[in-house]
Amino acid sequence: MGFWKNLFNGTGGTAIATADSALGVSTQVIGEAANPRAKAGIESRITFRKDRNIDLYELEELCDAVGWSRRPLRKVKKAIEHSFLVVTMWEVRGNYRRMVGFSRATSDHAFNATIWDVVIHPDFQSRGLGKALMQNIVRELRREDISNITLFADPQVVKFYQGLGFKPDPEGIKGMFWYPNSRY
Amino acid sequence: MGFWKNLFNGTGGTAIATADSALGVSTQVIGEAANPRAKAGIESRITFRKDRNIDLYELEELCDAVGWSRRPLRKVKKAIEHSFLVVTMWEVRGNYRRMVGFSRATSDHAFNATIWDVVIHPDFQSRGLGKALMQNIVRELRREDISNITLFADPQVVKFYQGLGFKPDPEGIKGMFWYPNSRY
Repeated sequence: MGFWKNLFNGTGGTAIATADSALGVSTQVIGEAANPRAKAGIESRITFRKDRNIDLYELEELCDAVGWSRRPLRKVKKAIEHSFLVVTMWEVRGNYRRMVGFSRATSDHAFNATIWDVVIHPDFQSRGLGKALMQNIVRELRREDISNITLFADPQVVKFYQGLGFKPDPEGIKGMFWYPNSRY
Repeated sequence: MGFWKNLFNGTGGTAIATADSALGVSTQVIGEAANPRAKAGIESRITFRKDRNIDLYELEELCDAVGWSRRPLRKVKKAIEHSFLVVTMWEVRGNYRRMVGFSRATSDHAFNATIWDVVIHPDFQSRGLGKALMQNIVRELRREDISNITLFADPQVVKFYQGLGFKPDPEGIKGMFWYPNSRY
């Protein structure tokens, strides 16, 4: 798919399983970016991963940092297990690593995917990393031959997603949510 | 959940696994309705099921009947396998049975579900059966403790879903679709 070539700048070609010494588990790094918070003299980078070696408390902290309501960890764990794809973003400096972004998608593994829970730590917002996270998740879904990639966007992020090629209400198609007490 | 009591008229209380002599497999009937095409003297009904004993050619015929583009059966099979819930609607007359409705939902098994591919055979449209099919799928999702039930509605069916308690763009949330060539 030559179409991806420029977009991803060759960084995310093939998923690379790496032995991660800090975690003691194999990780799947799918992309990299420069760390906008890098300090002179310290090797530092941003990596994108699609393994599910996620500390639920660390994820909760990340969601706290953007002001999301807390959710039961038992359900968060189940949701991650049953997501088709999970892409996380990490700040890596030597042996130090910290999860600074998260997103996941549900899917029927064939036609449709829906992206949920896109979160970027405030320290890393407005630096192009939300865009990079989304590009990684879209690329992985395309690689799995998913043709219909969807999401539900809060009003303040509609423009952000438009900039990434997502269209609101295409051909008049409406996103709808069921409300328990709206009619009954 | 008393809230469901009137809505479903007591027909879909507990999923019943029944030995289906025609199919030779166990089926899970989750609801029933009167058959609007019933003929005098012939016992006839509409049943709703959540098993996946689906003949893919029969499903293709149903989708043909409403004018949908054909999709590779291999992918349809995969999508059904990886859907969280599949609800089908059947016309049953004695030993004769025919699939006259279909719907399915993807989910993370915890928070979110998205309903796809809602189809009702033209012979059975405008008789309240689309509504009954949707009520069955929503009820099953609620039973699984899914709090966020979503769908993407074509413009001509937005009102239909509104009548069932679905709201378009609640709090300004926009359904968005990714288009490969829209920006790149």
